[in-house]
This record gives sequence, C-alpha cells and structure tokens, in this order.
Amino acid sequence: MNHDAIGVFDSGLGGLTAVKALNEILPNENIIFFGDTARVPYGTRSRQTILRYTKEDVAFLRRHPVKMIIAACGTVSSMLGADSPVEDIPFTGVVYPAANRAAEVTKNGRVGVIGTPATIQSSSYETALHNINAGIDVTAMPCPLLVHLVEYGYTDRNNQITRLAAEEYLTPIRNAGVDTLIMGCTHYPIIKDIIADIMGEGVTLLSAGEEAARYAKICLEEQDLLTDSTQQGHNIYYVSDSVSSFRENAKNFLADAAHGQVFSSRI
Amino acid sequence: MNHDAIGVFDSGLGGLTAVKALNEILPNENIIFFGDTARVPYGTRSRQTILRYTKEDVAFLRRHPVKMIIAACGTVSSMLGADSPVEDIPFTGVVYPAANRAAEVTKNGRVGVIGTPATIQSSSYETALHNINAGIDVTAMPCPLLVHLVEYGYTDRNNQITRLAAEEYLTPIRNAGVDTLIMGCTHYPIIKDIIADIMGEGVTLLSAGEEAARYAKICLEEQDLLTDSTQQGHNIYYVSDSVSSFRENAKNFLADAAHGQVFSSRI
Repeated sequence: MNHDAIGVFDSGLGGLTAVKALNEILPNENIIFFGDTARVPYGTRSRQTILRYTKEDVAFLRRHPVKMIIAACGTVSSMLGADSPVEDIPFTGVVYPAANRAAEVTKNGRVGVIGTPATIQSSSYETALHNINAGIDVTAMPCPLLVHLVEYGYTDRNNQITRLAAEEYLTPIRNAGVDTLIMGCTHYPIIKDIIADIMGEGVTLLSAGEEAARYAKICLEEQDLLTDSTQQGHNIYYVSDSVSSFRENAKNFLADAAHGQVFSSRI
Repeated sequence: MNHDAIGVFDSGLGGLTAVKALNEILPNENIIFFGDTARVPYGTRSRQTILRYTKEDVAFLRRHPVKMIIAACGTVSSMLGADSPVEDIPFTGVVYPAANRAAEVTKNGRVGVIGTPATIQSSSYETALHNINAGIDVTAMPCPLLVHLVEYGYTDRNNQITRLAAEEYLTPIRNAGVDTLIMGCTHYPIIKDIIADIMGEGVTLLSAGEEAARYAKICLEEQDLLTDSTQQGHNIYYVSDSVSSFRENAKNFLADAAHGQVFSSRI
C-alpha cells in the first residue's frame, strides 16, 4: 500500500490519453503528469536525442514522490526497448502492454502498427509481437504528421487535411487485411474516429496509452502499491512550455486537464 | 575588412534558404550555420521559451569567430522585435528586411504575411510595415503545419496534403486582394511553387531569408566588414540533433548542405 503518485510523462500532450484511462480504472490514485511541450515532438528526432530527453523527463518526475513511472509515449517506449530508466520502482512504456493486447485480440494473425518515424524504424512493436507469437504478420507505417495534426487541434472527424494524411498512411495497412491496429503513439486516439472510418468495421483499434494504464494497474496490484484511499485522486500537470498553451490544447485530450493544477517547469 | 564568418541560425533547416542567398550574393564569405533540429519547431511555442532558445543559439554561434549574426528564423526575429541579442557585432533578423522590401514592392498597398502562430500573434511584420508606411493594409495568417510539411519533405508541387493546407491558409489572403506576399518563415520558399499556384499571377512572393541576406550585405559593407578574399567561401553546418537526419533533409534546401562539413553539437 502506497499513497505516492503515479508519474506519467510524454513528449507532449498525447500521454494525457493514458492519464484519462488511469483516472477511470484507478480513480483513487494521484497522478503527476509531465509533458515536454517545449520540445515536442520526439518521434522525428534521433535515438540519441530521444534517450537524452527521456533521461531528463524521468529525472524531473523523480523529484516528486512517485511510486511508478509510465512512459506514455510510443517513441520513448520504443527507444528504451526492454530497458527501464529506473531500478527501484516499477516502470512501463506503452509498447509491451499494447503488443500483448494485440496478440490476444487478433483472430487472423495480422496486426497493423502506426507510430512516429522513430518508433516504426525501431521495429519495437514488431519485436514485442514476435516475442509473444512469431507467427503474427505485422504491417507498420510511420505517420510523421499525425502528432502535429493532433497537437494543433486538426481533430474534427471531417477535417480534410487529417483525413487525407491518415488515408495515405493507413491504406497499405488496410490493404494488408489486418483485423487489429495498434495506435502506437498516444496522440492517435484523439483522431480515432477518422482512423476507424478509414480502417472500416471489423478492425479493432488499440490505444497504446490505455493498454499501458491497464498494465500499470496490474503492476501496482502485484507489488501491493495501490493506495487504500477511497477519495478521488488528484491530477497535477507539469509542462516545459507555457501553461497557457497547455490549457488551450489539453481539453482535446482530457476535459479535467484544462481546469486542473498546471505548472510550467524548465527541465 | 574582416575574414570571420557570418553566423546564421534557425530553429531548424529553413534558415538554409538564407545561407543559399548569402552564398549567391557574397560568394567569398564563410558561413557558420546552426540549426536547432533537436527542438524544432519554435513557432508553436511560447514567447518565453522561444527567447530562451534564441539566447542559447546565439551563445552557440558566439563560441565561433563570427562578425555578424543573422536570425534566419521568422519566429525568433518576431520575438526579438527591435531588440538585438548582441551588442558588439551587427545583427539582423528577417522581419525588417522583408517588410522594407514589401513596402517598396507593393503597388496597391495590400500586403499579405504568412508565418508561424508565434510570428503572426506578435504582429511583428505588421508593426514593421506600419512603421514604414502606416497606410499599408496587412492581412496575416498563421500556418502551423507548413514548417512540418517542409521539414518532412512534403514539398512536391503536386503534394495534395500540402496543397490543401496551403489553400486553407492562403484563401483569406488571396481574397484580400494583396499584390505582395511575405513568406515570413524561412521554410516557406521551399514550397514557393505551391504558394504561387494558389496566390495566382500578379502577386510578388518575398522570401524573408533572401531579404535578410541582402540586408546583411548592406550592413557588412557599411561597417567595412566584408572579406577581401577572392576564394570561394566555406559553409560549416552545426545541428543540435543528428547529422544523419540533417543530411537527409538539408538537400531540399541547399544541395551543398548535404555534402558539406556537418557537425552535431548539444547546446
């Protein structure tokens, strides 16, 4: 039993999709979120730079009392692979939880993955899926624009630019006949409607952030680290750029974020 | 007379459009370029963060022997306004040179400006134009996606995503009847064809980076700081992210950049 917060970080605001899921499945837990909005995006940068930023993000969260850390960022999770950036508390990225769920869900053994260029180049999801079941056929596509389209609010189901970009990225995956698609970057669930329209019925869309939240619950249960509080937990948000830009955009991800306690902090 | 290099910096690679112009009009000068590719873009971040990054970029260039500094970035130039980040050597951003040229060129007194959200929100070009001629009618539009579309190579004249985004941004400016358009971010000249197609004939497109290069020549002449070398100058490129990603993308801006001396340097 432990009353410390769960620490969650992301390159930008996509990780709020994981915070939202944590609030639903672990409503009594406190969450400390860090979004590196002064340096978003990570997914088009080099591995070396992403790992340096990751180290700094984790160090920032560790200045607070946290009992677990979640890298709610497909890019960071992919660069880390099987490595954990902390030794004394539990950690998860989004890749393994999402791959585990995809392997369970797929019926025809064909899984699609979309992510940032760094994520797809790393083959992280493919490696994780094949470690579970070497027979799974994986079709992966880098989607460099989608993070920006989501961060800038091009998220309406009828937005023609986002539809055109998504159509271009998703067509090869749809043509491969997948029945399961891992949205491997935590920004993508915000445009789930558009992705679903393009993929068509019968394709299960998995949110990497949600799967990480479910996996985090299991980790905390196993290590007896869940709080026994019966009060609603609090979310505290930190960002590396200004609070005002966070307030403008965070409501797209999580209604509460726009009203909660938000601080700007250099890292 | 001075043999030191001209220092040029940008948030990313857009500033290479200014380097290209410098190479053409001052072929004997050495150039040191710094592109902050580990933190690009700047134009969607807060003023405070952009000014902090600017200070670090200037400090990086000043570790080399430079006789002038050019902020080849519309966002940085807009945040600085009339301030110079250096006192002992000449400095220019791109806003005043481009505004001066636009005021000269326009016949109907209607000027359009496109730039990043930070640039447009600052009204920097509008202020500069009105300081020259208060009667100029300015129509300005923020174009958050264009930097990314250029940085990721969505630059083909027929690229449907870039055309759709540009059409959306430029329609209000075209409808305002401008005869001159300031491409207020140094990334935009790379998609000049698309911008010209949408604006139609009879609209003069001005590249902020090129105008800054012309203005730099005048500054250096006036202060007797031009080199008297008759040999071709050298370009040296520094980036804050990896050299390999620079080599992939820089050729879109400047053929030489892909083959020149390139170094990765943390700032």
